[in-house]
Amino acid sequence: MRIAIVLFDGITILDAIGPYQVLSRVPGAEVRFVAPAKGRVVDQNRLLHLEVEHDLAETVGTDILLVPGGPGVQRLLKNRAVLDNVIRLDADCTWTTSVCTGSLVLAAAGLLAGRRATTHWNAVPALEMHGAAYAAERWVVDGKYVTAAGVSAGIDMALWLADELAGPDSAKAIQLSIEYDPAPPFDAGTPSKAGEGITAALRKAMEGRNKDWE
Amino acid sequence: MRIAIVLFDGITILDAIGPYQVLSRVPGAEVRFVAPAKGRVVDQNRLLHLEVEHDLAETVGTDILLVPGGPGVQRLLKNRAVLDNVIRLDADCTWTTSVCTGSLVLAAAGLLAGRRATTHWNAVPALEMHGAAYAAERWVVDGKYVTAAGVSAGIDMALWLADELAGPDSAKAIQLSIEYDPAPPFDAGTPSKAGEGITAALRKAMEGRNKDWE
Repeated sequence: MRIAIVLFDGITILDAIGPYQVLSRVPGAEVRFVAPAKGRVVDQNRLLHLEVEHDLAETVGTDILLVPGGPGVQRLLKNRAVLDNVIRLDADCTWTTSVCTGSLVLAAAGLLAGRRATTHWNAVPALEMHGAAYAAERWVVDGKYVTAAGVSAGIDMALWLADELAGPDSAKAIQLSIEYDPAPPFDAGTPSKAGEGITAALRKAMEGRNKDWE
Repeated sequence: MRIAIVLFDGITILDAIGPYQVLSRVPGAEVRFVAPAKGRVVDQNRLLHLEVEHDLAETVGTDILLVPGGPGVQRLLKNRAVLDNVIRLDADCTWTTSVCTGSLVLAAAGLLAGRRATTHWNAVPALEMHGAAYAAERWVVDGKYVTAAGVSAGIDMALWLADELAGPDSAKAIQLSIEYDPAPPFDAGTPSKAGEGITAALRKAMEGRNKDWE
């Protein structure tokens, strides 16, 4: 079972690494990291440097495609070759998936037209602009398209997918292996839980982060 | 505020990336990834390739040290230069922290002698062998030493630390930015929740993973 995880400059790296840590442990999984171009990729903070050995164009016949998000998505949306490769790979996929603003890439490629999907809470208008029907859920399944909400939601989505691929005992064993028994010290993971003040300030900060990657 | 996150061959990469995604967003944070030697580092699956620009020996005066875990820890435990650098860096740290089996490194360096600490559920005897007093908590604070349980626990610990460093509003904003409102499809994140059968099989699989990195 071939799984391609897309890496790109400006990625929010936890979007990719959460699902990677889960999916790489599914029995029979063969994970490949792929980038728009081979070589060095930097994350949104320009602090983490990854060396990617495969590019999208040379990748064929993947069973699962996962597109993470991050401010660098803005560049992917303008990159016709990336969108065309996503469309090409999707044609062979059993599951086409995204985390966070990665769903904007699927939507811009035309794959989510009229479909239920989710994204980071701060990117809902952009998702709708690309023709998807936003659903406020942790992850959303519509046919073979599975989209997760912001960043950490990719872990939950990947455990759901692990169950689909290998059954509940495998999914539970993976959850146990990463000791995923979450206990955050605050309950502030959604705009309504964090409150208006924190949400408004964060929206502004995220605009700045996006500008960094225009 | 200088934060050093240790990367090494055989790392469980989510151990590092979960806290990184949180701590890099603390106001004033300057994160540096450091490795035993500069250059290429591979994760425990040998699938993710990281280029690390700094080594432990050249790193001085960090405020926070974070040691992740993974099967590659076994090699760190035998590497006297790594342990000596951890001892040297700890002397200047405000917080010395670990995720998963990273606590074995702190313990082997003698930093947790007689202290309460935690680790991955499958590494408890090893932690105790190195002189720490195991506490079955999501993360454990003893003086300036903060140790998190397995893999995903690093996210929870980092949010606690974000509060200590910058206050609750900053910590909540970070939690919101990564939309950390966990909703795993199963409740199997601890041995007692996953059950004996799954736990026993996983213990065996993890032995194999460790052998890969002896």
